[in-house]
Amino acid sequence: MSDRTIGVGVIGAGYWGPNIIRALAETPGAQVVAVADLDPKRLATVSKRFPAVRTTQDHRTLMSDHAVDAVCIATPISTHRRLAEEAFAAGKHVFVEKPLAGNVADADAIVRASEIAARTLMVGHTFVYNPAVETVRGLLRHGVLGEVFYVDSQRVNLGIHQFDFNVLWDLGPHDVSIILYWLGEEPIWVQCVGQAYVQPNIEDVVFLTMGFPSGAIAHAHLSWLAPSKLRRTVVVGSRKMAVYDDTLPAERVKVYDRGVEAISIEELRRSYRAGDVHSPRIPETEPLQLEMRHFVDCINGDALPLSGGEAGTRVVRVLEAGMRSLRTGGARVPYRIEGARRPELVTLASIGA
Amino acid sequence: MSDRTIGVGVIGAGYWGPNIIRALAETPGAQVVAVADLDPKRLATVSKRFPAVRTTQDHRTLMSDHAVDAVCIATPISTHRRLAEEAFAAGKHVFVEKPLAGNVADADAIVRASEIAARTLMVGHTFVYNPAVETVRGLLRHGVLGEVFYVDSQRVNLGIHQFDFNVLWDLGPHDVSIILYWLGEEPIWVQCVGQAYVQPNIEDVVFLTMGFPSGAIAHAHLSWLAPSKLRRTVVVGSRKMAVYDDTLPAERVKVYDRGVEAISIEELRRSYRAGDVHSPRIPETEPLQLEMRHFVDCINGDALPLSGGEAGTRVVRVLEAGMRSLRTGGARVPYRIEGARRPELVTLASIGA
Amino acid sequence: MSDRTIGVGVIGAGYWGPNIIRALAETPGAQVVAVADLDPKRLATVSKRFPAVRTTQDHRTLMSDHAVDAVCIATPISTHRRLAEEAFAAGKHVFVEKPLAGNVADADAIVRASEIAARTLMVGHTFVYNPAVETVRGLLRHGVLGEVFYVDSQRVNLGIHQFDFNVLWDLGPHDVSIILYWLGEEPIWVQCVGQAYVQPNIEDVVFLTMGFPSGAIAHAHLSWLAPSKLRRTVVVGSRKMAVYDDTLPAERVKVYDRGVEAISIEELRRSYRAGDVHSPRIPETEPLQLEMRHFVDCINGDALPLSGGEAGTRVVRVLEAGMRSLRTGGARVPYRIEGARRPELVTLASIGA
Amino acid sequence: MSDRTIGVGVIGAGYWGPNIIRALAETPGAQVVAVADLDPKRLATVSKRFPAVRTTQDHRTLMSDHAVDAVCIATPISTHRRLAEEAFAAGKHVFVEKPLAGNVADADAIVRASEIAARTLMVGHTFVYNPAVETVRGLLRHGVLGEVFYVDSQRVNLGIHQFDFNVLWDLGPHDVSIILYWLGEEPIWVQCVGQAYVQPNIEDVVFLTMGFPSGAIAHAHLSWLAPSKLRRTVVVGSRKMAVYDDTLPAERVKVYDRGVEAISIEELRRSYRAGDVHSPRIPETEPLQLEMRHFVDCINGDALPLSGGEAGTRVVRVLEAGMRSLRTGGARVPYRIEGARRPELVTLASIGA
Repeated sequence: MSDRTIGVGVIGAGYWGPNIIRALAETPGAQVVAVADLDPKRLATVSKRFPAVRTTQDHRTLMSDHAVDAVCIATPISTHRRLAEEAFAAGKHVFVEKPLAGNVADADAIVRASEIAARTLMVGHTFVYNPAVETVRGLLRHGVLGEVFYVDSQRVNLGIHQFDFNVLWDLGPHDVSIILYWLGEEPIWVQCVGQAYVQPNIEDVVFLTMGFPSGAIAHAHLSWLAPSKLRRTVVVGSRKMAVYDDTLPAERVKVYDRGVEAISIEELRRSYRAGDVHSPRIPETEPLQLEMRHFVDCINGDALPLSGGEAGTRVVRVLEAGMRSLRTGGARVPYRIEGARRPELVTLASIGA
Repeated sequence: MSDRTIGVGVIGAGYWGPNIIRALAETPGAQVVAVADLDPKRLATVSKRFPAVRTTQDHRTLMSDHAVDAVCIATPISTHRRLAEEAFAAGKHVFVEKPLAGNVADADAIVRASEIAARTLMVGHTFVYNPAVETVRGLLRHGVLGEVFYVDSQRVNLGIHQFDFNVLWDLGPHDVSIILYWLGEEPIWVQCVGQAYVQPNIEDVVFLTMGFPSGAIAHAHLSWLAPSKLRRTVVVGSRKMAVYDDTLPAERVKVYDRGVEAISIEELRRSYRAGDVHSPRIPETEPLQLEMRHFVDCINGDALPLSGGEAGTRVVRVLEAGMRSLRTGGARVPYRIEGARRPELVTLASIGA
Repeated sequence: MSDRTIGVGVIGAGYWGPNIIRALAETPGAQVVAVADLDPKRLATVSKRFPAVRTTQDHRTLMSDHAVDAVCIATPISTHRRLAEEAFAAGKHVFVEKPLAGNVADADAIVRASEIAARTLMVGHTFVYNPAVETVRGLLRHGVLGEVFYVDSQRVNLGIHQFDFNVLWDLGPHDVSIILYWLGEEPIWVQCVGQAYVQPNIEDVVFLTMGFPSGAIAHAHLSWLAPSKLRRTVVVGSRKMAVYDDTLPAERVKVYDRGVEAISIEELRRSYRAGDVHSPRIPETEPLQLEMRHFVDCINGDALPLSGGEAGTRVVRVLEAGMRSLRTGGARVPYRIEGARRPELVTLASIGA
Repeated sequence: MSDRTIGVGVIGAGYWGPNIIRALAETPGAQVVAVADLDPKRLATVSKRFPAVRTTQDHRTLMSDHAVDAVCIATPISTHRRLAEEAFAAGKHVFVEKPLAGNVADADAIVRASEIAARTLMVGHTFVYNPAVETVRGLLRHGVLGEVFYVDSQRVNLGIHQFDFNVLWDLGPHDVSIILYWLGEEPIWVQCVGQAYVQPNIEDVVFLTMGFPSGAIAHAHLSWLAPSKLRRTVVVGSRKMAVYDDTLPAERVKVYDRGVEAISIEELRRSYRAGDVHSPRIPETEPLQLEMRHFVDCINGDALPLSGGEAGTRVVRVLEAGMRSLRTGGARVPYRIEGARRPELVTLASIGA
């Protein structure tokens, strides 16, 4: 069905929805045909900019619209599962904004629904489609950095405080999805320390740490309370080191030929290598565009989702573990709960899929 | 005795000792009269630059030298206690390089010895004498930043790996001494996650977190494995935020008039303040010079040590707690061990001081 | 007539025209009613995004459109005079993209036409509406910087090479309009050195210098051949100094409390002041939006153009002088040609305006 | 005579002299044996740090000192010629601080004296020994940058105002010596615009431009009146571009793979290349050390001065031309005065050297 234009319905026209609509408007092979939102003002704004798009306050209108092949869900996290299940039940392909769900059970249910419906499920981990992130992944894949020692990320700025979830769920999906994508492994343990300053029980500052089977650790400072915007991630490898700074207008990825050459405690000698710094050219295509094109490719059967249901669930699992750690004063908690089996697999087997 | 020139003996002429010698050479009211080191080559270098200074391979020569009023100890940590005790026993004033000792028991013993000898004990927490650090402290003192929410510090670079202690003990004293000085309170708990990559059991990367009675938390990333040198500390307060970046040639302290104005969950409203940025002028005097002058003032009875035995012990206590946390997989541990009494106070009482 | 919505026609939908259309779409009191361009593809793009706008390949259709009260001209420089004269003849208000014209004679003619038609003429010197530029002007107005010694500007990047005029006419209007606005005076002399590397006779690198009656000099480096984009302007005053860097995401204007305190050749003494650095908050409104709102205000009689015909002519006069200097090997040339009188004034008198 | 230690006498212990003394103290094969200065306080300071060095207020003592093989002249410019001539007459090798002299006639005389005495003459163009400058020269030599289009340099800071010469003579020697070294050619013309703000007739801000036979132009902004220190030089070549920023703690040289691919006026097409950015590792040896070692090598006959009398004279010739241009309102003046012959060559021929 790759020659047909995919009709897309977007649910949620608040903060991020309009970006999806705009990106889809420029995506070959896709067309936004309908937008649903509870707020008529938002729908009016959409209509003004895209007069040909049908708008509705009732998302079920969109679900039953035969011109809608795929649904993009850009609504509050707590609604993701219900809306995704409805969409799969109606035979639609589904794109869910990050994070996939507010807990692993919901994420599993969404994955299950997509498997039963045999429809594409993709999660909006936009950074996985960021050419700079891809560049670093290439460096890792090709062994340029050697074995990864650790990853350290700073993702901080002033606001925007959310009311229903903390900064771990707001900014965390970015770093977790990037780090899991880069390392290609799931963590063993998760640790999360944080504090709620402005609103009770809604942490606005957290420090998240993950330990991996390879020995690598990853650390992220996430904050809504910071004087200036930082988006800086360092990958320290045994051979080279890379810095990815998303706030820079140019040279967003730098590779440092730096490392430890030799340490000899016998001779009390330490020698370091400090060579050239290289900044590879990064293509300037907008990540959201690349993500939407990939969604179309997946629906058309030309690709498998880079950020599919499994990837989305892994991120939720880290965040859920992070919450357990936060609630127990920052204790180190296992990524997988002892004795828990991956329910989706069991269920899939039981239904004979 | 303030008119007399203080004769100083320096033990240890390795990495840091020569800096102390140079700084003392320019300190009014002080004069380096003797230097001890086991390595004759180092002594030869000292002699070449300072021909008038007596050198010896036996530190006891220096301890019994009547021209020596004060001793500066710049030797490996494990020797601090023994040398300090000898110096106090010989009636000398003592300056000990940071950290004061490798454990609280040793630190306490040194403090006790200074009290018994009634001689000045000062610890080389040079950053406490850094005009930029003092500027931030002034902002905190005068309420410019409001209540402190959190402090986040990055102190990372490539090397220099130590052989006998980890990066927590090497770089940690700087951040811990700065943070305790700024906040004016001792932590309740300490948490430390780290990894040893290059040498077994010698962590080269750690993330240290401290929780304080006021509700503030402080976090520091310390690393010998980083592509570029970072010395950046952020203080987020309820009224303003400050950044202290020690790598910059100018504008090392910036005060951001940024904050949260109002968050109303009822009206789903959030408003932020983003005002001017101000960078106060920082005097350019070298911190080490100021530290040495302060040491002389303390010996002369004109001041009390800003980084005395108590302050030095508090830093060691944090590091020791950090080690306990590290060894238990990053668990949150109390700053003070339950039931432990401050031995120095007991002892002081018992000796009737 | 201030309550009526101004109908605007835009001529030229190439590089800059679409930006004007978009900005006008969000300007209260204005509405784009028609767009003219020779290229039907560009018109199709406009129609797709703004279906209600009439499009035409013949600009005369737009000129005779009664719904069109004002015309925005975003066409090649050589067409500015003819189109502006037609528009004024049709009784329209006119906005002309910078530079106003390719020579002073044409600029004068346009100003004359606007005066005869008694219609608003405004030139697209967008930077004059930039809040950062306004902030620096405020510093100058209120004497914060003292007397201006000199202004130095770097406006360089790679490309975009123009085919019909050089970098002086492409990037120069920005700096010249900013500097004349700040200093509030016209230069006495102009000097311009340059070289054409990529295309014969089309200078891609020039250094422009202007001397002012106050003694101030202004210098600008303009280039299409540079490794990275620079937009940095320094204003050195007798009391303070300011830097305006338009490439920064924040702190785009910095005021340095730096200067010379005293220089005494008798005592061979020099003393400098190096105080605080202050970065005032800059409103984030888009300059183009502010410019379009100002155009509407001017048409409605609520304001006089900040970048009117006179201001636009002054910029052209500097560029024309710069060309004379360039063609004579960088000689210093007078801003006003000896004996030349301002023709528009003469003409205005003769027509009894 | 390469095995013998060179005895060096230093004349002038003001601002720069002590740096030379310190550098020589660490130079193998050289030893400072005597220092002359009119000011006894300065001599006392030298004695304190270097007790073995003989000091004198009469430079003739040093000239007649048989232990002195070479003389370093770090005195005011106006004294260079007389002192150098005396030193050569006494059979010494001579190092003269930059600029070699205050006019070409004096520079020529010094060169002549060195030739007659057959002794080494070296000029203190320290930047020519800077590893970053050498790195850029390597890029040029090996064609990495292609043909040089232009060089643009910013060398500005606040102070230090000189009393007897302007900023062109103070900061200009650095850029001129670097640029002539890089380009390997002498300019055809020189142009210089400037202004004296703080002291009458002593320009504190100048813009210097040079045109070269190859078509390259070079431009330098030199200023004692600037809010922050800039040391940034851009080299734009036909193949790549390089930036040398001496204020950075790392990555002081960056090579940008950027350029114009094709410009076709027929097809109205322009295409640019924006590839990787590379920052080669720069050795961290101090330039002054390298310079002093080179001076020793030259005296020992192991090398020819990289910054010898000819190179020093070329710099003076540019500065002298710059002064002519400044005094005539920034007119373009020839580098070589019409009809002037290089006197030193004539003289050399006449003496049969």
